[in-house]
Amino acid sequence: MTEVVPAKPISWPVGKTSAASFSFDIDAESAILNFKPNAVDQMSTMSHQSYGPLTGVPRILDILEANQIKSTFFVPGYTARRYPRVIKNIVAAGHEIAHHGDMHEQPAHATPEEEIGFIERGIESLEKVAGVTPIGYRAPMWELSWHTPELLSKYGFLYDSSLMDADHPYELAVGNKSIVELPIQWALDDWEQYAFLPDITGVGLIESPNKVREMWQLEYEALAKAGGIFILTNHPFLSGRPSRAQSLDIFIKAVLADPKVWVAPLGEIAKHVRSLNLEPRVLTKPNLNA
Amino acid sequence: MTEVVPAKPISWPVGKTSAASFSFDIDAESAILNFKPNAVDQMSTMSHQSYGPLTGVPRILDILEANQIKSTFFVPGYTARRYPRVIKNIVAAGHEIAHHGDMHEQPAHATPEEEIGFIERGIESLEKVAGVTPIGYRAPMWELSWHTPELLSKYGFLYDSSLMDADHPYELAVGNKSIVELPIQWALDDWEQYAFLPDITGVGLIESPNKVREMWQLEYEALAKAGGIFILTNHPFLSGRPSRAQSLDIFIKAVLADPKVWVAPLGEIAKHVRSLNLEPRVLTKPNLNA
Amino acid sequence: MTEVVPAKPISWPVGKTSAASFSFDIDAESAILNFKPNAVDQMSTMSHQSYGPLTGVPRILDILEANQIKSTFFVPGYTARRYPRVIKNIVAAGHEIAHHGDMHEQPAHATPEEEIGFIERGIESLEKVAGVTPIGYRAPMWELSWHTPELLSKYGFLYDSSLMDADHPYELAVGNKSIVELPIQWALDDWEQYAFLPDITGVGLIESPNKVREMWQLEYEALAKAGGIFILTNHPFLSGRPSRAQSLDIFIKAVLADPKVWVAPLGEIAKHVRSLNLEPRVLTKPNLNA
Amino acid sequence: MTEVVPAKPISWPVGKTSAASFSFDIDAESAILNFKPNAVDQMSTMSHQSYGPLTGVPRILDILEANQIKSTFFVPGYTARRYPRVIKNIVAAGHEIAHHGDMHEQPAHATPEEEIGFIERGIESLEKVAGVTPIGYRAPMWELSWHTPELLSKYGFLYDSSLMDADHPYELAVGNKSIVELPIQWALDDWEQYAFLPDITGVGLIESPNKVREMWQLEYEALAKAGGIFILTNHPFLSGRPSRAQSLDIFIKAVLADPKVWVAPLGEIAKHVRSLNLEPRVLTKPNLNA
Repeated sequence: MTEVVPAKPISWPVGKTSAASFSFDIDAESAILNFKPNAVDQMSTMSHQSYGPLTGVPRILDILEANQIKSTFFVPGYTARRYPRVIKNIVAAGHEIAHHGDMHEQPAHATPEEEIGFIERGIESLEKVAGVTPIGYRAPMWELSWHTPELLSKYGFLYDSSLMDADHPYELAVGNKSIVELPIQWALDDWEQYAFLPDITGVGLIESPNKVREMWQLEYEALAKAGGIFILTNHPFLSGRPSRAQSLDIFIKAVLADPKVWVAPLGEIAKHVRSLNLEPRVLTKPNLNA
Repeated sequence: MTEVVPAKPISWPVGKTSAASFSFDIDAESAILNFKPNAVDQMSTMSHQSYGPLTGVPRILDILEANQIKSTFFVPGYTARRYPRVIKNIVAAGHEIAHHGDMHEQPAHATPEEEIGFIERGIESLEKVAGVTPIGYRAPMWELSWHTPELLSKYGFLYDSSLMDADHPYELAVGNKSIVELPIQWALDDWEQYAFLPDITGVGLIESPNKVREMWQLEYEALAKAGGIFILTNHPFLSGRPSRAQSLDIFIKAVLADPKVWVAPLGEIAKHVRSLNLEPRVLTKPNLNA
Repeated sequence: MTEVVPAKPISWPVGKTSAASFSFDIDAESAILNFKPNAVDQMSTMSHQSYGPLTGVPRILDILEANQIKSTFFVPGYTARRYPRVIKNIVAAGHEIAHHGDMHEQPAHATPEEEIGFIERGIESLEKVAGVTPIGYRAPMWELSWHTPELLSKYGFLYDSSLMDADHPYELAVGNKSIVELPIQWALDDWEQYAFLPDITGVGLIESPNKVREMWQLEYEALAKAGGIFILTNHPFLSGRPSRAQSLDIFIKAVLADPKVWVAPLGEIAKHVRSLNLEPRVLTKPNLNA
Repeated sequence: MTEVVPAKPISWPVGKTSAASFSFDIDAESAILNFKPNAVDQMSTMSHQSYGPLTGVPRILDILEANQIKSTFFVPGYTARRYPRVIKNIVAAGHEIAHHGDMHEQPAHATPEEEIGFIERGIESLEKVAGVTPIGYRAPMWELSWHTPELLSKYGFLYDSSLMDADHPYELAVGNKSIVELPIQWALDDWEQYAFLPDITGVGLIESPNKVREMWQLEYEALAKAGGIFILTNHPFLSGRPSRAQSLDIFIKAVLADPKVWVAPLGEIAKHVRSLNLEPRVLTKPNLNA
């Protein structure tokens, strides 16, 4: 085995010493239907998920507008087909639309052929509904297969945002090419803090927005000090609820108060990373017998 | 698919800018016996559930009386038959009695024929015990089937309180009729915060009433600001415990301190909503192949 | 069905308006071995359980001594046989020893014949090791069967402490006799807050002693105001750890600061209750078809 | 059965009244691959684990260096083979490398023959990669079998750190020899507080570093007062994240502020314990039929 080399700090645009991005995954019904198709018969569960596009997204768009920031929305193809006006509104507000599978499928649990289907159907729906060809991808459940990067490269994606081994963005080697990787982590996801649907997700734990913001604020401050990238992932069906959205608003304002932090959509950050001509990192799959 | 349209803010009675309702589900033994009938042999578990009607309800009635507010109690038929005096006391205190199934059955996991049985048996018991024909319904586990609204309309119900896609009440289309929907959410339920019965519910997590009140207070304030409806759902077998009830009392007083919030039973709120002649919203079941 | 009648407030000894008791269940290995016998091969797991009698109990005895209070220790027969000196030390310090099964067996999951075996083997071990015939019983996992009260009465027990339907002690009818019931609740047990053994108990959640004390303090204050009985249940393998024991010490001092609270072992409280000649309460098993 | 005797307080080096050690388990991929080998196909999950050696360890080494303390790193053989440079850097910084199985195997779930394989492969890799023959062992998942101590003694280990029955170090009898035992506990492990990987570990609960530090600080203070040993176990893939590492740094500084606490690697502490010529404690396996 060749030893994997850690990601290194990168330089940020002039005057900036770290980056932050507030991203949103509009899973809506798809995240539930993907692994439990007959949940389609549970009207209340479906309504819980539709809160995201119907009520959460408009509220979040208002907050982003009030704070004058642009963001990235990861949209499964199914969500785009079911809520086209919601998606068009996001585009109209100047935010980035990125790829999040078609029915929220996890690449690591699929064959390469199936993966191609998810990617193609997702692109097709985003182009048709949003008029956008996505340059960014995030694996549903953040669960990339080892084939995904090559497929993303082949389909013209600039970046992925599903890996967890670094504080800094990097170029991920794909053969003799590369894609930009914008790393994330479970602690910066609202699902663990807020999600509960009986027999579907969560064990009942629902945290206070104050606890959650404290945790995110601590990690933001420490990541900023390290010169890294802080990527928050929120789901409108969860963080679109009034008090969580308000807490997010307070947090965004705290981040924006620091002029040295570059707040931008992931696509812009990826373009910046690409401009740095970084040497690609080679991630090797563990060999169980080595 | 026709795209679902979000619920819109509604107007509230003169001088009011939002609404709040403190509702109670008196599940008692039924919620456990429905999915684990042989728990009937577990004397301590049964006593845990009976704390609700025996000890929790009287304490809650005192708190509601002290605060001079009326509330809505959702009562499964089985609870009414087992604790008739408890239910009569609730009626005598001027509170609303509403429908919560017969043995706490979840509509989404039943056939339409079975659902009819739950509804009819529940109505019959509430009429017999409480002398009340309920105008409100809440699905056990908040799990409506897509057939339930039509059945509720057919059986003369004015409102349901089991959907989660909105901050505001609305008229839910049922063919060319409608029922009033008063939306709820998991974070405003005490079960997730307090319930634990080994091998039956919960994973052991039991929260402090202070944490729970903080979370509810934050959501109340944000929902009030949004002009929405804040519906808290408490179970007397949980929130009837002394310190939780005391915490609820403190919270109720905080809500009542704001003269712009309309605190009322759900039935009254539903009648107000009906008086507004809102255009019914059509909720469409997701099509897995669309 | 005859409707169950709630427990009523009782009178306490002169000058006292409520009662508090700090009880301990010395489960040690038995609680694990009962449902997973082959955990006996897991040396570390066994050492985790033996922390209770070896390290936790001496520390707790010191705290009780320093605060000049007597307590009740529920001891499974197996614990008594494996740790006789530990049990003798508890007796020597003047505390009550009570019955907690033989290998921590749950009555609700046993036949009446098996229950008789648990009771007899437990009594035999406590008599042999501690020289004590117990007058109190607590069902392991607090899971009484509907037969247990009759068996306890037959074997001469004065009281049980495993039911959850009341804030006040009461006489529990057993035919035309009765036993005293000293009711408990899950929120006043340290297991939910602190216990974790992979694949055996808990999901990883381990709380801070400060959170736990806050929750217990709130419930203590509210129960005292209601004139009820506050029974705390601690496991030495959990609450015998230094910071948890220190937190318990702080809490005990807070309770003792109120001269109107009667702090006593459960046996003494049960004798007081018996002296009141209360009318026994009849608890009826739910009828699934009623 | 012969009754097990509790561990007694020991004397510490001159001027010291207790000990503290900050230990790290560099599980990386091995802890996941051991029980779910096909997780090797989940690229994101693997990247989550590799965060430990790639990003977490360098950050932790910086913190240890800044605080001028030496620590103990438990390294599975597989980790050493996959990340040799990382391990060499730890050695170069003067820290202790100790044994943690080969692929993070739990002794309690293995035959003695299999255990020999884990031990030998682990030693071989540590010698080859780090140039170190380990004198310390920690069972993966802290799950010793009853055979492990004898095997450790046979393979020349000075100490183990996997048992939970004491606040003080002790000599653990192995026939007429002994090994030093440095006891640990679940509440002083970061896994329970921070770990989450869907369908692999955790239920979604992720705590704030502030909550975690409060809990550790309380236990540290109480253990120090008791004259015991405080052993913190952190995993670089978890506590190497920026805000958690910063919280750990704050905590280390708080511990170092007390001149009476001896902060040292576990190997040094074990040598001190050995120098005391303590009488070995005999731990007996419970007899299910006794």
